[in-house]
Amino acid sequence: MIADLICVGNELLTGLVENSNAGYLSRSLWKAGIAVRESCVVADDKEMIASALDRALEQSDLVIITGGLGPTDDDLTREALAEILDRTLILNHKWLDKLESLFRARGLNMSANNRKQAMILEGSTMLDNENGTAPGAIIEEKGKLIFMLPGPPNEMKAMFEEYVLPYIRQRIRGGINRVKTLKCAGIGESMLEEKIKSLGQWDLPPLSYIARGYEVHLQIKGNGNRMEADEAISEAEKRLRNLLGDCLYGSDEDTLAGRTADLLKDRKWTLALAESCTGGLMCDAVTDIPGSSKFFKGGLVSYSREAKIKVLGIKKELIEQEGEVSAATAEAMALTSRLLFEADCGVGITGVAGPRSDSAGSPVGLVYIAVATPEGSACHKLNFGGGRRAVKERAVQTAFNILRKMLIR
Amino acid sequence: MIADLICVGNELLTGLVENSNAGYLSRSLWKAGIAVRESCVVADDKEMIASALDRALEQSDLVIITGGLGPTDDDLTREALAEILDRTLILNHKWLDKLESLFRARGLNMSANNRKQAMILEGSTMLDNENGTAPGAIIEEKGKLIFMLPGPPNEMKAMFEEYVLPYIRQRIRGGINRVKTLKCAGIGESMLEEKIKSLGQWDLPPLSYIARGYEVHLQIKGNGNRMEADEAISEAEKRLRNLLGDCLYGSDEDTLAGRTADLLKDRKWTLALAESCTGGLMCDAVTDIPGSSKFFKGGLVSYSREAKIKVLGIKKELIEQEGEVSAATAEAMALTSRLLFEADCGVGITGVAGPRSDSAGSPVGLVYIAVATPEGSACHKLNFGGGRRAVKERAVQTAFNILRKMLIR
Repeated sequence: MIADLICVGNELLTGLVENSNAGYLSRSLWKAGIAVRESCVVADDKEMIASALDRALEQSDLVIITGGLGPTDDDLTREALAEILDRTLILNHKWLDKLESLFRARGLNMSANNRKQAMILEGSTMLDNENGTAPGAIIEEKGKLIFMLPGPPNEMKAMFEEYVLPYIRQRIRGGINRVKTLKCAGIGESMLEEKIKSLGQWDLPPLSYIARGYEVHLQIKGNGNRMEADEAISEAEKRLRNLLGDCLYGSDEDTLAGRTADLLKDRKWTLALAESCTGGLMCDAVTDIPGSSKFFKGGLVSYSREAKIKVLGIKKELIEQEGEVSAATAEAMALTSRLLFEADCGVGITGVAGPRSDSAGSPVGLVYIAVATPEGSACHKLNFGGGRRAVKERAVQTAFNILRKMLIR
Repeated sequence: MIADLICVGNELLTGLVENSNAGYLSRSLWKAGIAVRESCVVADDKEMIASALDRALEQSDLVIITGGLGPTDDDLTREALAEILDRTLILNHKWLDKLESLFRARGLNMSANNRKQAMILEGSTMLDNENGTAPGAIIEEKGKLIFMLPGPPNEMKAMFEEYVLPYIRQRIRGGINRVKTLKCAGIGESMLEEKIKSLGQWDLPPLSYIARGYEVHLQIKGNGNRMEADEAISEAEKRLRNLLGDCLYGSDEDTLAGRTADLLKDRKWTLALAESCTGGLMCDAVTDIPGSSKFFKGGLVSYSREAKIKVLGIKKELIEQEGEVSAATAEAMALTSRLLFEADCGVGITGVAGPRSDSAGSPVGLVYIAVATPEGSACHKLNFGGGRRAVKERAVQTAFNILRKMLIR
């Protein structure tokens, strides 16, 4: 089964809003065994929507169209679909009542323009929206399926998971796409490919390499019937796991942070962080993991020298002699964070995120990362490129990877 | 001038990688006065690339195609363009030398597959890549412009800014798109539209509303010649500023965090944070601002009760009596963070990010945010929906907005 995605919105074409819906839908459809043929972004414009929809219906079995269902005058998807498919829009009194009581509950009067969100396409199945005011719709047209979903990602996702996915699953026909992604950290894309080519003749499923920042993901694709595909993938996975060793950290939905957290929980060790140049990003990544309160005791963003001395309790002399950006300071940060938060493991990160060198003249991108566990410690000197945000992200990914490797030893 | 974007990559269609290039390019082109007609994502497949390129060249003056220039076998953009445009690929010895010395400098041998990155399209202008191994290209075809850029965002951005943008600017012809975006926080989309409609007959340029999480952005578009467009936009802006008052926090490239930072710097006040449920996200947002070390003293991610008591110094009795998620605890966090980091302003955030209620039974999404400045303090009780990450993000946006409003008083 093949799908096309159409995301509607001027704000996407002017880049004011990042289009996260396309990625989410691609991922979710792929997992359900449906390949996305093409994904496009078009303007809030009836003609553009029509031409994208024509093209999509010609090539694909199902089309998901998101966005343009808001209450304001420039939201036109509902109206465009009515025109293109030659169907009328009918006021749904139940949805109108729901809208009115929703606004009442918030102590607000409903704006008149919200009313158009209760207009439903003739012959379509309305989809409830628990997170917003625009309902979605399932429309069958000439044996193909069109799903109309709201643009805000949280509304779209909830509706997709609750209604669209189960609906599609029931209808699935044709070939199945099976895929497994192996995830590596701390190795380059071409190095990884060379390593894999060293296996010699590869009579297994096709591989794709995706380099992203500090990571390279390896996608193994199996075609044919489900059993054949699964077998070929599992055989390839076994060979790759042997080859890749500890640079392979996980697969599919695993994240480097999540895997590191799992390893901490396996050991029943707790974690504390002291961040300087990464400014809280590692704390943020740890606390994005549901249940992180089980192992994460806390973190200090010691963005000033005083914070390192007064709050962490690092000796002033050490910082003065070795410098704020130094291996000694990173090590002291890892150590003192363990003491401050009474944690088993501590991570200390100090460096220069840029845009300028620090007062001591350390270059932008220079970062020291120290990790201390009950079984030992390590401190790495690193150089990252790519601007302030990139330095923060690379440093945090590297810190997770250093910690992870110490936990699997 | 009208542009089309084509992003090539299986990893984008399976959703393994988020497509951040399309948003960045849309934004940058728009600012340069070029509207993006359509933006699409296609597979690493010569036929798909060809059909997207045909369509784009038919409708637009320029086409930017990103991705598929990597060293591995599934990177096909270079080869596809050569076929489609009927041009040969020629080995560029200078680039090959550069690649080889690049690998040598890192103490590595160059993989043989990197060699294909030195193959240059006949009759094209090669673009240097300072951040990676794939050069880009400018190709003129039947009076239209094609720019071929690498997929990794940092490589693509640097090349776009260094070569593509100046090239386009020299060639610009036709109408200019002028646009101004006003940014509001703490007001809903339909409420905002009603407010604006209350201005009565609107004879000014068209407006678009873009709701994003806690913010609504208002795009004012001016067409016609540059002077007329600018005048109409500036007149509209004046009227809207009067109407919107303090829910309008800035315009265009402003961010809520950045504007709050500016206000802090104007007052010469420093900032400290104590975060519980937001887990470091606010520290991260503050330290993403270049030069934040000027006003940001530090932050504590007090993810455990002990951290609140032992590190922040909040009284155990207060937390036991009022609860970890309470107005009193948030206020104490704001206050003690000021003391701990010797800062002028402090923010305390405590709540339940989910996925489950806390042990005291507070519901998911309940968050208390307290702000203390030398001139006063405030504490707000809030309820956010939308899952763990959404709760974190909304809470941080709200905290910035509360602080901002206190700073402009």
